[in-house]
Amino acid sequence: MGLIVQKYGGTSVGDLVRIQEVAKRVAKTYDAGNQVVVVLSAMSGVTDHLIQMAEVLSDKPNKREMDVLLATGEQTTVALLAIALEKMGYKAQSFLGHQVRILTNNAAQSARILDVQADPIKDALADNAIVVVAGFQGVDGCGNITTLGRGGSDTSAVAVAAALGADSCEIYTDVDGVYTADPRVVSKARKLKCVTHDVMLEMSSLGAKVLQIRSVEFAAKHNVPVHVRSSFNEEEGTMIVCEDRDMERMLVAGVTFVKTDARITVTKVPDEPGVAAKVFSAVADAGISVDMIIQNTRASNMTDITFTVPKTDYKDALVIVEKTAKEIGAESVAGDANIAKVSVTGVGMKSHHGVAAKMFSTLAAKSINIMMISTSEIRISCVVEEKYAELACQILHTAFGLDAD
Amino acid sequence: MGLIVQKYGGTSVGDLVRIQEVAKRVAKTYDAGNQVVVVLSAMSGVTDHLIQMAEVLSDKPNKREMDVLLATGEQTTVALLAIALEKMGYKAQSFLGHQVRILTNNAAQSARILDVQADPIKDALADNAIVVVAGFQGVDGCGNITTLGRGGSDTSAVAVAAALGADSCEIYTDVDGVYTADPRVVSKARKLKCVTHDVMLEMSSLGAKVLQIRSVEFAAKHNVPVHVRSSFNEEEGTMIVCEDRDMERMLVAGVTFVKTDARITVTKVPDEPGVAAKVFSAVADAGISVDMIIQNTRASNMTDITFTVPKTDYKDALVIVEKTAKEIGAESVAGDANIAKVSVTGVGMKSHHGVAAKMFSTLAAKSINIMMISTSEIRISCVVEEKYAELACQILHTAFGLDAD
Repeated sequence: MGLIVQKYGGTSVGDLVRIQEVAKRVAKTYDAGNQVVVVLSAMSGVTDHLIQMAEVLSDKPNKREMDVLLATGEQTTVALLAIALEKMGYKAQSFLGHQVRILTNNAAQSARILDVQADPIKDALADNAIVVVAGFQGVDGCGNITTLGRGGSDTSAVAVAAALGADSCEIYTDVDGVYTADPRVVSKARKLKCVTHDVMLEMSSLGAKVLQIRSVEFAAKHNVPVHVRSSFNEEEGTMIVCEDRDMERMLVAGVTFVKTDARITVTKVPDEPGVAAKVFSAVADAGISVDMIIQNTRASNMTDITFTVPKTDYKDALVIVEKTAKEIGAESVAGDANIAKVSVTGVGMKSHHGVAAKMFSTLAAKSINIMMISTSEIRISCVVEEKYAELACQILHTAFGLDAD
Repeated sequence: MGLIVQKYGGTSVGDLVRIQEVAKRVAKTYDAGNQVVVVLSAMSGVTDHLIQMAEVLSDKPNKREMDVLLATGEQTTVALLAIALEKMGYKAQSFLGHQVRILTNNAAQSARILDVQADPIKDALADNAIVVVAGFQGVDGCGNITTLGRGGSDTSAVAVAAALGADSCEIYTDVDGVYTADPRVVSKARKLKCVTHDVMLEMSSLGAKVLQIRSVEFAAKHNVPVHVRSSFNEEEGTMIVCEDRDMERMLVAGVTFVKTDARITVTKVPDEPGVAAKVFSAVADAGISVDMIIQNTRASNMTDITFTVPKTDYKDALVIVEKTAKEIGAESVAGDANIAKVSVTGVGMKSHHGVAAKMFSTLAAKSINIMMISTSEIRISCVVEEKYAELACQILHTAFGLDAD
């Protein structure tokens, strides 16, 4: 008994038969005495098809209009699910972003949720209806349709759950939970029963693609328990919770990697105040975000600065940095797009020493060179050659005792 | 120079190439110094596809949700046209029903427009944008998406034109105007240069499918000049105007027919006050609308009552009428679904006698029996056997001098 938000992804509503399956699962939850709010993505493939149509018309489609276009995907699925539920004898009502309403800023195609004004949903629930909300979409203060970016329906679901004070937010997807590593890379990867918001946040940022990062941020901020599970079976998935109460206290919860960054190194930078700032200001002014930064002090008042940028911005960044390097009198600029960032993440790391040492020695044992290191309380990331990403992931998974039996 | 509303139907925006063609035509009108508001239908076939999906899920899909579903069709085309216009270097902004906003009553799937609150459109026009409005859809007072029924985009266009005080409302379609008869039936049918709102209204009711009837009502009520023309060529179409100023004063503007009605006759009804009312009350209570009614007085205080109902309601109506006939002591009930209503319409009929006589004698000359007759100031309709509908249309077209040279 409670108020349950269930989110179904694109493959879960991929065709009419699957929509009927979703309807059955929703009905079962409702019949068990719960209030149910369903949040849906577009049918898988539909969003891509809409983007393709727009790209035939324009190489750079107007962003506001893209949002109007893309919002039709979720509008279609919510109506169809409501129709399927009504046919089964349930009262159901769909809500679009502007009907909920899910208020966002006006950043078309990557809008952020400012507020979920959920009174209309509450009214419908009080009226014993099953509520079906279009994910991914919102409305800005001027009434423009906005969308939340890829995976945005996860965030819609968590935001709606937070606004309603839901007892649980179930994210139904085509994988059956959060794994200690990508099972396609690490065959012995195990499904996690439980993970904290913090660890999930780090893992999402570092390559675990199960949930949109912002949905995890939202869940952490508003303390929403999230249950990631498969819509194709009845198994328990992974609970993402605020605190690791009775959960297995693993040192490391998961090993992840991303290949989306590139590395840039500026050598022999005069080691004077404000010089490094000039490099990063120039990059920031071009709208390019920098991830890891390392500065090594050399002898004779010179330093080397190394940092990573998204691969998609690599060439632009290189041009900017070469120009700035000349201005500040640095020796040279080198870059490398063939890198990967491998990370181990776990709340247990807070209270255990030796995780970093174990990570470095494990990589060293296979002669994998570490180019950059960055750490947080619950994470260690190493930049290695791209070709070693999968191998590094596998040996770390074994070294930290994560392999399934 | 002026404010022009252009409405493009489903075949005119049937694919991406055609949407680009529409964009060019719109741009041309804008470049000529006009403010342009475009109203669009869904791509041809899309609405039917959406209906089919819903019908897989339910034999009687929830009407509110159907409107949410169907509204995606126009939402898609307005975004795509705006994207195409932006690509061509024009500022363009799409508006959905709830953004305009087009306020309707809450009759899902056949909503009526109550008000067009067009300030956002005026603002966009003042900002030199080309405005692209989703036809067919509106929003009720509670924020529910509504649709206006088949052909509703015509009504959207005329309503928007009325609200903006537009100089002209151009309805682009796959035919190039209003004809004296359906050219598929009458090979010598001619395109009308001009027709009054009143005559167009009668012709639409009586089988001319060029415009949704309600759009003509709206145009007549708000005195909006409408220009029906083809989106596939540059030819002038048909002007639908308030008064027939200099237009060719034809006795009859057109010959039309419908095969959508069925006939029911109740014989030997006691000719007492209130008895006929019982029949029609019973039919009305079932939500069935009656069109033509004829009552013949027999000898000995008995009458026969004949009326027409939509073919789709024929069987239901027959059951109801048979029950009522017993209650009131009528002799029998007979019905006939194989009928057609053939009509001649023209504002010139107001001032000319002999139109009815000519119609009857023309039909008689071909031995076409007239079962029922109804007339208005500008129209005469005859019910005939369904199989004679086309023939009747052809010979009347010739008899009233409408054949093209």
